[in-house]
Amino acid sequence: MTLSMVPLIEHKKRGGRHSEDELTALCRALVAGSIPDFQIAAWLMAVCWRGMDAEETLAFTRAMVATGDTLEWSRLGRAVADKHSTGGVGDKTSLVLVPLIAAAGIPLAKMSGRSLGHTGGTIDKLESISGFHAELSPQETQSQVERIGCAMVAQSGALVPADKLLYALRDVTGTVDSLPLIAASIMSKKLAAGAHVIVLDVKYGSGAFMQSRAEALSLARLMVSIGEGAGRRTRAVVSEMEEPLGRAVGNALEVREAIDTLHGAGPDDLRELTLALGTEILVLAGRAARGGPDSPAPHHGRDEERAELRARLVHLLDTGAAAAAFERMIEAQGGDPGVVAHPERLPSAELVHPLRSPGRGSAWVAAVDARKVGETALDLGAGRRSKGETLHLGTGIVLHKKTGDETAPGDTIATIHARTEAEAMTAAERLLQAFTFRDEPVPAPHRDWQTIAASGEGSPVA
Amino acid sequence: MTLSMVPLIEHKKRGGRHSEDELTALCRALVAGSIPDFQIAAWLMAVCWRGMDAEETLAFTRAMVATGDTLEWSRLGRAVADKHSTGGVGDKTSLVLVPLIAAAGIPLAKMSGRSLGHTGGTIDKLESISGFHAELSPQETQSQVERIGCAMVAQSGALVPADKLLYALRDVTGTVDSLPLIAASIMSKKLAAGAHVIVLDVKYGSGAFMQSRAEALSLARLMVSIGEGAGRRTRAVVSEMEEPLGRAVGNALEVREAIDTLHGAGPDDLRELTLALGTEILVLAGRAARGGPDSPAPHHGRDEERAELRARLVHLLDTGAAAAAFERMIEAQGGDPGVVAHPERLPSAELVHPLRSPGRGSAWVAAVDARKVGETALDLGAGRRSKGETLHLGTGIVLHKKTGDETAPGDTIATIHARTEAEAMTAAERLLQAFTFRDEPVPAPHRDWQTIAASGEGSPVA
Repeated sequence: MTLSMVPLIEHKKRGGRHSEDELTALCRALVAGSIPDFQIAAWLMAVCWRGMDAEETLAFTRAMVATGDTLEWSRLGRAVADKHSTGGVGDKTSLVLVPLIAAAGIPLAKMSGRSLGHTGGTIDKLESISGFHAELSPQETQSQVERIGCAMVAQSGALVPADKLLYALRDVTGTVDSLPLIAASIMSKKLAAGAHVIVLDVKYGSGAFMQSRAEALSLARLMVSIGEGAGRRTRAVVSEMEEPLGRAVGNALEVREAIDTLHGAGPDDLRELTLALGTEILVLAGRAARGGPDSPAPHHGRDEERAELRARLVHLLDTGAAAAAFERMIEAQGGDPGVVAHPERLPSAELVHPLRSPGRGSAWVAAVDARKVGETALDLGAGRRSKGETLHLGTGIVLHKKTGDETAPGDTIATIHARTEAEAMTAAERLLQAFTFRDEPVPAPHRDWQTIAASGEGSPVA
Repeated sequence: MTLSMVPLIEHKKRGGRHSEDELTALCRALVAGSIPDFQIAAWLMAVCWRGMDAEETLAFTRAMVATGDTLEWSRLGRAVADKHSTGGVGDKTSLVLVPLIAAAGIPLAKMSGRSLGHTGGTIDKLESISGFHAELSPQETQSQVERIGCAMVAQSGALVPADKLLYALRDVTGTVDSLPLIAASIMSKKLAAGAHVIVLDVKYGSGAFMQSRAEALSLARLMVSIGEGAGRRTRAVVSEMEEPLGRAVGNALEVREAIDTLHGAGPDDLRELTLALGTEILVLAGRAARGGPDSPAPHHGRDEERAELRARLVHLLDTGAAAAAFERMIEAQGGDPGVVAHPERLPSAELVHPLRSPGRGSAWVAAVDARKVGETALDLGAGRRSKGETLHLGTGIVLHKKTGDETAPGDTIATIHARTEAEAMTAAERLLQAFTFRDEPVPAPHRDWQTIAASGEGSPVA
């Protein structure tokens, strides 16, 4: 099919649907370099304007996948899982979830990105482990998963080259925030990575990419419909992120917190979200193994099944099985597995500066603005403002008080891990503005997580 | 002001307004070549989506004008007029109107375009006059108008370079049909050409750029508000174009019809539209001369004033004064003024092929689709499909029957002026499809012209 780009742009501009053939031709021509950037840009803005329906977004996602290599797991002879998070401040869930799921006997190959702006990147966090090597080829990834059950690697450019080109253009043309473009970008990489079971961690709020719950639910539903439409068992867990997840923000600090959690400790919100996502993976993997319809295992109610699977995961944390899986993965990827038993071997910042509660009397934390915390960490060198910037892996923030906590005057509400006194001072001023206090008790945040399943119906899980 | 293009795109995308400073910075950076095409393209599509209000469109138009040279007429010491048509099939109005207005003593410098697609270009039509030179510099244009009262020249690239760049990009990004972008493009060139009085001929229907009356009225109102906002006396006449204007379509054929009309003859619709536009110019020029408010001359009602001005124009046609002004202009621009007295000196096609009425009995013409007629003329070489194509100036179509006319079997309903028998045959087949016949009488098309004045209120003029 020859591609006439102007009629295609005009069709979308007038609110029309694209056929699968059109979208295939578009993605093919894009990767071949035969469409000028200005035409792609106009088309992207027309998509922001008019949207794409679920079927069209699925066709677009498939067309993107077809532009590159795909991973194939048939040699394993069982269901492979994958997970994606829309990202957020202090989100180290993957660092806990991947070894935990591998310990449960379900293979998982996780491709991740690097830090950009106020949100961190899983790959940067892992690289704070001395010697860790994340730039694996698809073949190396595949053989490691076959050998030890999991891998955490940098997104390969060989998968979905169309996404790389489109994302670069979206970033400089104000066309990032379109649900179908976001969903297709995320899901194309998941489909290309070949997993049979996909669990999506979709966050909304100050520290997240999506600002509102309604948007997050729409994105979750669209991504689940793409995954299911492409024959993958897919679920999403939608959760709020007004304050950072866990207490640590910054690369080595987050790895340390993940290790604590893998040892059965760690902050409650991180542990619970990880267990919720893990349980969904086990549910779907069980369904995939039985090959039957999307119903609980025989002789189990849904709640009963979930409780049992969750208990299995807790056991894997408590017995050290999950931590051991993390050690194996670090070792396989050239890193120092000793950090799991000795997290003090991780890089640390030059100085640690306490941020004190500023009040005159007792007060309660009413909010910790995740975005402001993320931006303060970015200032400290924990993140990068533009591609290729070097990070300071030991820097960052640890929150000692979060929403609902009581503070007395002079209490340490956070510690700042900085390279210089001056940077610590600037960070302290900025970080203080992330906190809101009230002089009466404030309830801890309500966890209104919701799972989105194939039917598109949401159900509360916590 | 430094320009951050992504926030500007996102602002428009979310439905925001741009400030005059932003639009000035945008146009300046555009002409300086410091904004990548893909960012302009995304912004253009966001403007198609969200629009611009009247004030914003005026600011944008001014910002475009500021990117280039402007003409200045103070040496003439009186109001200079200008006219623009949104174009259509068989539209040779300017060829009659410019000399007519000049004969009425009102200076007029008309810049025009070339043929593209199914609509013709005034400059191509004029170039069918042997020796005629349309590529005048702004200085040459200015001195000719000062000397003989009028000039008809090709649009100068020195005026509004921003429009040239934007138009080229709109053409290849599906962003042509946006009212504020169209209005700013047209009006920026009118403002830069410096006239004090601007009359706009806005057409809608099959042969026109705008398809619906509602769209044409909106465009007319927006352009009038820009003109008035920039301190020019501006009116628009909105007219339907379902069938071609006049009978001739094709370069030399249209010049010939214009000459007939300048001699006081010519087809009724062309004559009446020219007189309507001319009357508005005289009305506005009178107001400008009196320098007073937008009211009729003392001792005159509006209708009385118009009837008197129209009669003056008719007199200029009947006495040959308008034709003489055309001769003077042709001579000043190096052309053969003898064509006005001897139109047979104009180029002609190799052969003339009659198209016969196909019916078996008496029939009435119910419609002559202007677009189809225009496309047939394009096939014959009267127009160009892409820039730089050579035209065959003698080719085209003359309609002998138009809507409402009765035809008997075998009557000539049109003549095809072609280079070869084969082309004539193909054109005949295509042209026949432009005609719709009915076996009962059909009324001639109703002329529901409407003038749009500063208040934005429309008033019927015919």
